[in-house]
Amino acid sequence: MIFQQQLRIPGPAPLPERVVRAAGKPMIDHRGPEFAALLREVLDGVKRVFETENDLVLFTSSGSGGLESAVANLVSPGDEVVCCVAGNFGERFAGMAAAYGARVVRLEAEWGQPVEPADLEAVLEAGVVFITHNETSTTVANPLEALVRVVRRHGRISAVDGVSSIGSMPIEVDRVGVDVAVSASQKGWMAPPGLAFVSVSERAWERAGTALAPRFYFDWAETKKFQRDGSTPFTPAISICYALQEGLRMMEEEGIQNVYARHRRLADATAGGLEAMGFPLFAAEGYRSPVVTGALPMPGLDVNAYRRLLREKYGLVIGGGQGKMTGKMFRVGHLGYVTDGDVVQILWAMERALEDMDIAPYDGRGLAGAARHLSEEAVPAAL
Amino acid sequence: MIFQQQLRIPGPAPLPERVVRAAGKPMIDHRGPEFAALLREVLDGVKRVFETENDLVLFTSSGSGGLESAVANLVSPGDEVVCCVAGNFGERFAGMAAAYGARVVRLEAEWGQPVEPADLEAVLEAGVVFITHNETSTTVANPLEALVRVVRRHGRISAVDGVSSIGSMPIEVDRVGVDVAVSASQKGWMAPPGLAFVSVSERAWERAGTALAPRFYFDWAETKKFQRDGSTPFTPAISICYALQEGLRMMEEEGIQNVYARHRRLADATAGGLEAMGFPLFAAEGYRSPVVTGALPMPGLDVNAYRRLLREKYGLVIGGGQGKMTGKMFRVGHLGYVTDGDVVQILWAMERALEDMDIAPYDGRGLAGAARHLSEEAVPAAL
Repeated sequence: MIFQQQLRIPGPAPLPERVVRAAGKPMIDHRGPEFAALLREVLDGVKRVFETENDLVLFTSSGSGGLESAVANLVSPGDEVVCCVAGNFGERFAGMAAAYGARVVRLEAEWGQPVEPADLEAVLEAGVVFITHNETSTTVANPLEALVRVVRRHGRISAVDGVSSIGSMPIEVDRVGVDVAVSASQKGWMAPPGLAFVSVSERAWERAGTALAPRFYFDWAETKKFQRDGSTPFTPAISICYALQEGLRMMEEEGIQNVYARHRRLADATAGGLEAMGFPLFAAEGYRSPVVTGALPMPGLDVNAYRRLLREKYGLVIGGGQGKMTGKMFRVGHLGYVTDGDVVQILWAMERALEDMDIAPYDGRGLAGAARHLSEEAVPAAL
Repeated sequence: MIFQQQLRIPGPAPLPERVVRAAGKPMIDHRGPEFAALLREVLDGVKRVFETENDLVLFTSSGSGGLESAVANLVSPGDEVVCCVAGNFGERFAGMAAAYGARVVRLEAEWGQPVEPADLEAVLEAGVVFITHNETSTTVANPLEALVRVVRRHGRISAVDGVSSIGSMPIEVDRVGVDVAVSASQKGWMAPPGLAFVSVSERAWERAGTALAPRFYFDWAETKKFQRDGSTPFTPAISICYALQEGLRMMEEEGIQNVYARHRRLADATAGGLEAMGFPLFAAEGYRSPVVTGALPMPGLDVNAYRRLLREKYGLVIGGGQGKMTGKMFRVGHLGYVTDGDVVQILWAMERALEDMDIAPYDGRGLAGAARHLSEEAVPAAL
């Protein structure tokens, strides 16, 4: 039995007590005035974080449901689309597009590397470009602004998987010109999984008006119609809406720029600590995600055994590799409700476990490697 | 400000304190052993209530997502299907089938009436028959067993919307021979909205193997594959899984036959009380739903004003009419976490409000009409 588990995967992220309590409010009529007020506050709050005036539609689903809505509302069978694939979630987007009958042009990058904007130029015959903002599987943040610039220059539509990024790093939907952006409640938003949200630009609405892929549950236009009257076409995950409302309030209390700075700082501290322990970082320098840090094992370390020991002895749960990196790397999540002290605890346990496994004696080098990144400020009062 | 609201719509239903607390457990890794154990208990518990050995697949969505999965996994564009339409939810099923390119044969019944098995005989050229078990909009429970018998005699596939019925009235999937049955967490299961579950028979799997409608998020086979390994293809609504686990435990403590008897009893009590107050019941006798009771206003009563007064003065929230019955009827929900005492409170407030609106003086006839149905037993300890 684990006395206290530290969940450090790249989502679902731990929940603040305030959010848990908010999620426990009594059920309400999803066609009544209380829900209309809740929905309005949630949509407005999410849009402020997206930095967009575009419409935002909400679905009761995981983030992948939101991604599928982008495919189902933008694609007609036989359409050619570009999918930027540099990891597991890029693969998922491509799999969805193929399932809906699109002819998928794959723009691939090596795992651990970002998608190159220059490479995108070469394949831009297609109407819609699917881009993963933060590729959680490889811990790489793609150069979104540069990629979208290429898409716009060619007059194409960008659909961005921001599931794990938005709320933890800037996206600036309107300034950058992202047509469709998708996120989900269980990431930086500090709520449980169950809600996806999708921003839709004017140009995306136009394309959706002629796209022929079948859709009902994930139909944007129907959702927008109901939202205008303060409800949703289908029964929404009310308790997750309450949780998201509270998570948004906490983000605003902290200040969204402070939220971003905290994520960047904790990513740097984690990376510094892991490198000091001798772990080769997986993501290309300059493209490291602020929400998750991935590394390869040093020679002699079995990743699965290491993760098991961390879980069983230290109560620390970190992610493993995904897809072709299964069993070959690990990923430490630091998104949402996470502080400098949490990173200290993570690095301490990880270095201790290396000693337990006779890889290297504990001498505190992990913490030392992180120290210069950690904040000397107080943690935010809201947390 | 309402001191204490009584939510008496046909779902979302009120949450027991035990369920609320369970839903507040810390987040866990959805790819780890804790979630695998949670998923197994939930799937097994739901299958016991469905009374089926068929596979059960779980989706993070509202009930309509589960319904859409039935369409997306059973239909190919151009297929002819039969949709039994006798209310708003039958319409929804038909709308989904049409959205996925099916040619929909509509078997209609008047609102308030059940779908007639004899009528179904006449249109059974089609491969899949979509049936609404409990038509929440008209408060009618269709004669499911007789309808499915017709479907089976013709060798067709039955797909049943049991969203609001299963868990509150018997379905007996295997004995009756229902191929696909769908329910959702926010109904009799006493959990918040966010999860749909779908049972799939061998014959339905065969058909799904050749069905060509596009699907990814709602794909049954992919979901089954992940569930076999103790997880889900996409991040599940973990907190709702915990809630559902606790709701299932409460249902098993009470005894599922006792759960059904309680719903039937409270439906009869509600109907008896409303009739005694002078409200004409909407659903045909013999087909009244055990989870929701609908009635028409007596002459001179404005339904919208009546519902508003109930909400604002008595904190009692009841449903209005849906679709073409909007503003023309009301619906009192009594599903899930509801006791004899709750029905007493509902009827008291509804009769008091009639006096407030100068329709008829309060003399306690509502309660008197309900009294012979109410239990003389203690309420279940589990509640």
